[in-house]
This record gives sequence, structure tokens and C-alpha cells, in this order.
Amino acid sequence: MKRILFGHPLSGNTHRVRLLLGMLNLPYEEIPVDIPAGEQKKPEYVAINPLGLVPVLIEGDQKIRDSHAILTYLARAYGGEQWLPSNPFQQATVAQWLSFSANEIHNSANLARLHFLLGVPVDLPVVQDRARSALHVVNQHLADREWLELDRPTIADLACFPYLGLVEEGKVSRAAYPNVNRWIDRIKALPGYVSMPGL
Amino acid sequence: MKRILFGHPLSGNTHRVRLLLGMLNLPYEEIPVDIPAGEQKKPEYVAINPLGLVPVLIEGDQKIRDSHAILTYLARAYGGEQWLPSNPFQQATVAQWLSFSANEIHNSANLARLHFLLGVPVDLPVVQDRARSALHVVNQHLADREWLELDRPTIADLACFPYLGLVEEGKVSRAAYPNVNRWIDRIKALPGYVSMPGL
Repeated sequence: MKRILFGHPLSGNTHRVRLLLGMLNLPYEEIPVDIPAGEQKKPEYVAINPLGLVPVLIEGDQKIRDSHAILTYLARAYGGEQWLPSNPFQQATVAQWLSFSANEIHNSANLARLHFLLGVPVDLPVVQDRARSALHVVNQHLADREWLELDRPTIADLACFPYLGLVEEGKVSRAAYPNVNRWIDRIKALPGYVSMPGL
Repeated sequence: MKRILFGHPLSGNTHRVRLLLGMLNLPYEEIPVDIPAGEQKKPEYVAINPLGLVPVLIEGDQKIRDSHAILTYLARAYGGEQWLPSNPFQQATVAQWLSFSANEIHNSANLARLHFLLGVPVDLPVVQDRARSALHVVNQHLADREWLELDRPTIADLACFPYLGLVEEGKVSRAAYPNVNRWIDRIKALPGYVSMPGL
């Protein structure tokens, strides 16, 4: 069965999927979507994802958009109990961080980064301040633990990692968040870790 | 075992949890958090949720923040295969809409509403336009189906419902989205449905 990932080389949303694919040792082909040229808004791609966003994962006749949904799929389909356990409460503790990534991190760290990378118009002081809030929350949470939940790496860590790891591209310093920095180093040391420009 | 929901009467984030609790016929006590007075940012509440947000669900010694994570928990713990199935691909198709609710709907329909409700400063034309984009995506998706996924009500529907149902409080008309309007009526007719001001 062929596994295809529509993505972009500089997309942290794509990268969190690459990370789990790497850690699960799953082969795939990545098809780059030309985001700066607006390919993601053209009819051919909107037919693949009506939201006009990367990533999208296709496996045979199964198609999933949204990086957090793709993490959920891959973790449950191929990850046993490691990356997203089936226990309802444990699953929910991991899911907390998927929402945190989709909203709080995306709309702060990633928007600041997109501003400097692609000139996306944002209220820069506001989004940078929100990025510091997100870093603060994660730094406090990691004060007495090595991983976000369950004392082991889960998709919670992979979800939050890319845009916190790339936050300095949005001109937000990570210096004041030592627990975050140690957690980033821990993720980079995991078997199957793959890098991307800026990380 | 006591089940406590920290929420706010006008919070759509709280309301999507109330909906599933109602549909699963689960008893609970709701403790209102005084959002306009900033109670959610005070140390007592930040100790409950470091993000300073409602809702939070507490069951015995288990605590979950984030409405989408709470939906995930309740659906898997009490909903059998109905609201969030265990099949990885089906689970992921539902999860797509949890992210859509957490980011695309929240940062459009809900921000416009909060602007008129609480005077929250937003770039109004931008967030209203994004709300129309979200309505458009859902309206197109519902052109040939009654529910967002799996031909039945799931937490995908309950997640997206409150702020699309309340979108006109942000001065965005729903008139051009008939499939959305019929879907809203379908949700309101579900057994266990509970209402809130504005719905």
C-alpha cells in the first residue's frame, strides 16, 4: 500500500507527521505543495483538502487532513499503546496538548514565524507575547517531568515540538525556558528523529 | 463518584461538553467561573487549569482541561463506539473536526462573538471573513451528508456546533449556508440536547 504525505519542507505542521512516521519507521513518499505560490488554494489541491492546508496523508483509499488527526491515526494504527494509549483518560491527557498545539502554539509561535518567513501580516507584539505564554505554560509543566504526559514520549510531545523548537524564527527567545530547552533536546535524541531547516 | 464541570454559562467551549454529558445522560455539577471578572486568571483557578480557561472536568482524582480533550474522554469512557469510534481511521476522521473547532472556528466565529459580547479587541473584518470561510467549508462538506463524519452524530458535530450556532452573535449571517442550518436543526433534535443563551 502506498503512503503519500502532501506537505511543505518548511511546514512544522507537516514536520510533526514526519517525526511520527520516522519514529514508527513507516515508509512514505512526500509530495511538496508550493505554499508560497499558493498551490494549496488551487482547485486541484482544494479537491484533496477543502481547507487548502498541508499536511494531508493518503493511505490507499483513506485520506486524512490535519496534522493532529494524522498523528492520532498513525499512533492508533501503528503505535500500539506507546504514542496515544487507548485508555480514555490517558488518551484525553494527550489530546489536551493536541488542542494546545492547534490553537495556542499555532496562533502564537507559528504566526510570528510566518510573519518573518513569508511576510504574513500579524499583530506581532501580541502573537510574540502569546508565544511566551505558551512557552511559560510548557516550561512550568515540565518543571517536574521529562515528557508532557504519561512519563514517556507521546504524540503530545511531537505535536508541540516543531513550533516551540522553531519559535526563535519568530524572534522570540527561548533562553528563559530551560525546561523547554531540555525537553527539545530529549525529543531530538529519540530513535527515528528527523530534522528540518531551523531545528 | 462526583463529576464537576468548571464552566461559564455563555461559553460555547463549556457548552459542547454539556451537550455530550446530556446526550450520555451523565449527571454532573457545574461550577461557574466568573470570566468577565477575570476569575480564570486568579491563582486559585490557575492551579486547576494553568491555561486559565474553561472548561475543566474533574471526575474523582482525574482532571482534564480543554473541551475537545474532555469530549474525547467522555466519548471513549461512556459512549461505546457511537461518539468517537476506536477504529484508528474513523477516530482520525472525527479528530479532523476537533482541530477545525479548536483553531478555525474558535479563531473566527468565537472571536467575532467575544468582540460584541465582551469587547475583546479583534480585527473584526478579518475574523468575520474567516468565520464565513469556516461556514463555507462545513456547508460544502454537508452538501451530501447529514453529519460531519460516519453518517451519524459524533463529537465532531458537537465540537463544531456551538460557535457555528452562535455565529450571528458575531454579526455574521448564516443565511447563505442552508446545509449548516439544517445540520444545526438536526443537532437540536438529538435526544439529550441542552440549550444555552443564543442557541
